[in-house]
Amino acid sequence: MPVKLAAPEAASLLPVSGIKLGFAKAHVRKLGRKDVLVMTLAEGSRVAGVFTKNRFCAAPVVLCKEYLAAKKGIRALLVNTGCANAGTGEDGINRATQSCEALSKLLNIQPNQVLPFSTGVILEPLPVDRVVAGLPAAIENLKEDNWLNAAEAIMTTDIVAKGTSRQIQLDGKTVTITGISKGSGMIHPNMATMLGYIGTDAAISQAALENIIQYAVNKSFNCITVDGDTSTNDSLILMATNLAGNFEITEDSLNFSHLRDILTEVAIELAQAIVRDGEGATKFMTVTVEGGKNAAECRKVAYAIAHSPLIKTAFFASDPNLGRILAAVGYAGIDDLDVDNLELYLGDILVAEKGGRAASYREEQGAEIMQASDILVRVVLNRGSEHTTIWTCDFSYDYVKINADYRS
Amino acid sequence: MPVKLAAPEAASLLPVSGIKLGFAKAHVRKLGRKDVLVMTLAEGSRVAGVFTKNRFCAAPVVLCKEYLAAKKGIRALLVNTGCANAGTGEDGINRATQSCEALSKLLNIQPNQVLPFSTGVILEPLPVDRVVAGLPAAIENLKEDNWLNAAEAIMTTDIVAKGTSRQIQLDGKTVTITGISKGSGMIHPNMATMLGYIGTDAAISQAALENIIQYAVNKSFNCITVDGDTSTNDSLILMATNLAGNFEITEDSLNFSHLRDILTEVAIELAQAIVRDGEGATKFMTVTVEGGKNAAECRKVAYAIAHSPLIKTAFFASDPNLGRILAAVGYAGIDDLDVDNLELYLGDILVAEKGGRAASYREEQGAEIMQASDILVRVVLNRGSEHTTIWTCDFSYDYVKINADYRS
Repeated sequence: MPVKLAAPEAASLLPVSGIKLGFAKAHVRKLGRKDVLVMTLAEGSRVAGVFTKNRFCAAPVVLCKEYLAAKKGIRALLVNTGCANAGTGEDGINRATQSCEALSKLLNIQPNQVLPFSTGVILEPLPVDRVVAGLPAAIENLKEDNWLNAAEAIMTTDIVAKGTSRQIQLDGKTVTITGISKGSGMIHPNMATMLGYIGTDAAISQAALENIIQYAVNKSFNCITVDGDTSTNDSLILMATNLAGNFEITEDSLNFSHLRDILTEVAIELAQAIVRDGEGATKFMTVTVEGGKNAAECRKVAYAIAHSPLIKTAFFASDPNLGRILAAVGYAGIDDLDVDNLELYLGDILVAEKGGRAASYREEQGAEIMQASDILVRVVLNRGSEHTTIWTCDFSYDYVKINADYRS
Repeated sequence: MPVKLAAPEAASLLPVSGIKLGFAKAHVRKLGRKDVLVMTLAEGSRVAGVFTKNRFCAAPVVLCKEYLAAKKGIRALLVNTGCANAGTGEDGINRATQSCEALSKLLNIQPNQVLPFSTGVILEPLPVDRVVAGLPAAIENLKEDNWLNAAEAIMTTDIVAKGTSRQIQLDGKTVTITGISKGSGMIHPNMATMLGYIGTDAAISQAALENIIQYAVNKSFNCITVDGDTSTNDSLILMATNLAGNFEITEDSLNFSHLRDILTEVAIELAQAIVRDGEGATKFMTVTVEGGKNAAECRKVAYAIAHSPLIKTAFFASDPNLGRILAAVGYAGIDDLDVDNLELYLGDILVAEKGGRAASYREEQGAEIMQASDILVRVVLNRGSEHTTIWTCDFSYDYVKINADYRS
């Protein structure tokens, strides 16, 4: 079950002026499931995206990059679950193109004004006829207060729908931000098997939008890991409809950092929700590494801890087997690390220092902290002033079960 | 259960002249278990070792390096299970030193002629009094035909004892090689939670011995992974007693490569045995990557595949979910990889090419191969002439169970 995470109330996901959402049960893979999502954007909307760095990136990712580069003004997004359309070669590109063409005809726009997204099983052909057959129904129910249905329509192995909203005042105008995400396994920095869509009605320049999405992703989706696998389909899209009435925000605006930080907050909440709903997760772990010479070595240590199956299974067992954490710190790849000079904390309890167990530490303290569902692991390297924080979950029987059974 | 691996017959582990082995049930952690091993070496024996690269290396590893560097002539080895004596700081060094001192007194040698080894739980103090109390019993049963008992005495989560022997003729003399190993989880290149001891009666120079151990470890223990964790205690020791009567082998000898290759064969068999007995393993996977520009990129791709929990769980389920393998190839970190130009084989079946599923591939073929307990995954990158092969196992419920329960 997800770790302290429930699906949002429909009313809590606030409409964003200019963004309509509609879904269909198109039987892409399973019958009776919301599996196609259409989003439409008001004319004049601006869109920015960041995508997986996997060399085997999926056909829709290839098209997204091409269509964004064409700068024709994105007017619609089309998402399907059930099939990732990845590892599908030229045929996959053709099928993704066909689905964009079909939606563009129905909406009376150009094909390269439609961004396509797919998530699901890799290496199988996209049933484009089924996706296309579902489009009229999705268009039929397009509306602005449909974010929860949209969040449900993009779920795969997710247990709960993920979404959140914020409102802020800019120039005396109310600006709304609403985002949804999906993802549960194959979660890794750069990025995850995850789709994320964040919409706002703020007026904002294209350059500022692209600045913000890169900033936000580095503080959110690039700081999570479930199983260390980088998916072929990861995409985060930031959409701004320009309808809130504020003065256009540029990178030089006084309001720029305000909007950036609130959008980053939304991205962090959506990213953490993916970890909380990590496949088989029973614990949510925050791993903080401080006192590094540079951010890169902090990340090395943090990910060595977050990726270790031995540590993740110990957390699943609520077993304060702290030696496994020290071992991970030791093999993280800092060649000149002085292990006698670092400290390891579990929550606020000092558990190891001077190369071994802290004299003050009692196993009962560790055992008590391990009972919680949210646990902080903190390593202080004492070699510099950089720090990093990432989020991950434990490793349970259910992770194996979910991934051994996924296709059946 | 181990994948096609049974414990060796006692008689198949041939005595090596000059190496005696004795064990004790010293109750280091669990009662009634063989958990202390003493090996003695004839005077004039030569010894070489390779050790974990983990910065949190265990106290006995620190002492092993120091004692080997002292070149006093190693005359005995002392191994305990039940406690790794790692993450134990200065106190751990003291306890390891005490155990060497105790054995050296009983054997009438110097403390730095004793190499200590520990394996088991990290971050707990070594019960040195128990280890020492067990020494007389271990010395009592020292004998040359005790290799199987020795293999059993170093087991932790291992299900079966691991050992093998070879004999070759050098200069008309019979040279015997016998090796044992232990390890099951925390298995990774550089190296594993593993201990390995290979003895031979061959006469061989120190330089040749050190050349061979490095060569052998690169072809064997550095090519295996179970869970990607690099242990604090890994040690491989090569011992040569100089009693076989052959002319001393140097790096220039005609016989050098002959002895090197047979020792490497023993090391590979011992390393593969560790994977076959990998925690919870039900499948043994050979991952071969060919056609790389250099060995490093071949290893990147091979380990991306071998470390992916998604791939390992799919193999556990006998599910030919080949897209997960393509995804791992894609995120392995070769920035200019042309995914349209590589081929993926499962056994001898071409399953993917030109960026997608091979036209000739039928899912039934993949499903049939996945039923086997030994499976070959072969990636042909088509960008150069380098290749690498590594070995790993699948990821099952039992892996989680073993590692969640390890300390209880």
